[in-house]
Amino acid sequence: MKLNRMYSFLNSDLEKIENELQLTIKSEHSLLQEASLHTLQAGGKRLRPVFVLLAGKFGQYELSTIKNVAVALELIHMASLVHDDVIDDADVRRGQPTIKAKWDNKIAMYTGDYIFARSLELMTNIENPEAHKILAHTIVEVSLGEIEQIRDKYNFDQNFKTYFRRIKRKTALLIAASCQLGAIASDVPKHLHEKLYLFGYYVGMAFQITDDILDFVATEEQLGKPAGSDLIQGNITLPVLLAMRDSELKELITSVNEGMDPKEIVQIIEAIKASGSIELSIEYSDWYLKKALSVIKEFPSGKAKLALTNIAKFIGKRKF
Amino acid sequence: MKLNRMYSFLNSDLEKIENELQLTIKSEHSLLQEASLHTLQAGGKRLRPVFVLLAGKFGQYELSTIKNVAVALELIHMASLVHDDVIDDADVRRGQPTIKAKWDNKIAMYTGDYIFARSLELMTNIENPEAHKILAHTIVEVSLGEIEQIRDKYNFDQNFKTYFRRIKRKTALLIAASCQLGAIASDVPKHLHEKLYLFGYYVGMAFQITDDILDFVATEEQLGKPAGSDLIQGNITLPVLLAMRDSELKELITSVNEGMDPKEIVQIIEAIKASGSIELSIEYSDWYLKKALSVIKEFPSGKAKLALTNIAKFIGKRKF
Repeated sequence: MKLNRMYSFLNSDLEKIENELQLTIKSEHSLLQEASLHTLQAGGKRLRPVFVLLAGKFGQYELSTIKNVAVALELIHMASLVHDDVIDDADVRRGQPTIKAKWDNKIAMYTGDYIFARSLELMTNIENPEAHKILAHTIVEVSLGEIEQIRDKYNFDQNFKTYFRRIKRKTALLIAASCQLGAIASDVPKHLHEKLYLFGYYVGMAFQITDDILDFVATEEQLGKPAGSDLIQGNITLPVLLAMRDSELKELITSVNEGMDPKEIVQIIEAIKASGSIELSIEYSDWYLKKALSVIKEFPSGKAKLALTNIAKFIGKRKF
Repeated sequence: MKLNRMYSFLNSDLEKIENELQLTIKSEHSLLQEASLHTLQAGGKRLRPVFVLLAGKFGQYELSTIKNVAVALELIHMASLVHDDVIDDADVRRGQPTIKAKWDNKIAMYTGDYIFARSLELMTNIENPEAHKILAHTIVEVSLGEIEQIRDKYNFDQNFKTYFRRIKRKTALLIAASCQLGAIASDVPKHLHEKLYLFGYYVGMAFQITDDILDFVATEEQLGKPAGSDLIQGNITLPVLLAMRDSELKELITSVNEGMDPKEIVQIIEAIKASGSIELSIEYSDWYLKKALSVIKEFPSGKAKLALTNIAKFIGKRKF
């Protein structure tokens, strides 16, 4: 089953959000417009808007209000990806050349800045001081996660805590904020805000762990980039950390470096896959998903609850 | 007379703001902390905080409130400089190595992102939707100005309109917003907001034109970088545009390129200085300053009015 089948009742609203995304990054500057549209049209699951809208469904859902939050959060996510690609020296994302590959790092930096600025502008349509505090705090955390990603690159001595804090900042907090801000923008009853935040956090953690697993087990076609790209770029993820508990494997893995022969990398990736660390990573992801499901269980019944439940279950089974 | 003598009654508040600047960019990450502090301690006139505070003096001035705006605007300015240095491949700013020179472009990109995120977080202490709208809109414009700066590099066919729009976005709007947001944060009577904004805009335009002039006429010691750096980096400023109206000079100037022999550059700079375009640029700056002075004339008398008047006059005479 496809992810978007789980919330088909949102289809028409999501289409409007897609239009709004395009409108928001329109620019008088052809280069900027082209680079921004390029990023937007490379696709993506629009997961953050989905969470914003679903959270909003527990309150006074008004698309004209909540769309501002949905579009802003997707743009913040996009902007962070554009800057990420500079750091990772990534030439391909979602099967498309990145901005830094198609143009250069400088254009990528300012396209990210611009997309981010536009998202802030949109958010000011939400006149709720709490929403702005949450968003700004999240953005600080995301930027710390980005710095951590540079600092921790090729650092084979990092521990599990470092990894979990990094993915929390890099991914989970923005999804948690999507749920929480969707709730605020739709006047969802106050006692559900923190719960929606927690749900988003758990799902976000599981989502990133699954992403890190798929980087090993999915095909190049599914990933839109070669398998094992994370490791080659020095991003030490959960399967790697788990595999390194074996001292022989650790020796093999720590030999990874930027200029390595692709054939050697393939061998290392296979060794990681054979070590049982993938299965163990899935258990971690499942732990977070169980937490997410237990949070959402207490929510009022309806389409939104069902969709959030199914998304959480889907993440545990997704193949790419 | 030194600039800061014109508002010595703000000294104690500006000291507190200096402390707050340091506190705000504190980070658990040593690299980030070091890079941010490095930028902060490289100095700068803290002009934006000065404008915020002076504007606030026309209302219910409360340092505990207005300092949030003052610090946020200085940090936004700093963040944009950090990203600017990446674009300009600048190794030196204010006599200090830039972040991109001391570390690298990637660290500079994320340090900018982080400083910027911190400034947003601080601004959320101002619970006024209008203030956030103004700030977000200004940030979009600044980011457009940054893109324009890349696009217009070494473009010797740009016209005056392009230049004025670029410096408006790059400099004047942030100073205008400093005045306007200082007014909002201090409940300055509504009818003065737009006037303070205009004052800031005019002063900002004059300030940037003067900066562009000084890049030709000041010494390397005063500038903290070689004279003529703008032109060498391909930033076409007002003195250059004016000089290029002479076809012989235009031919000479359009020969400038990144790999040029420094001796040849010196010759071109001298030719621009001898062309009368510096004097004419000063006239442009003076026009903006006159507009600024005529706006501020209508303000209620007091220390703040006097200080703003003197700052405007000072900018017309500043030597570095």
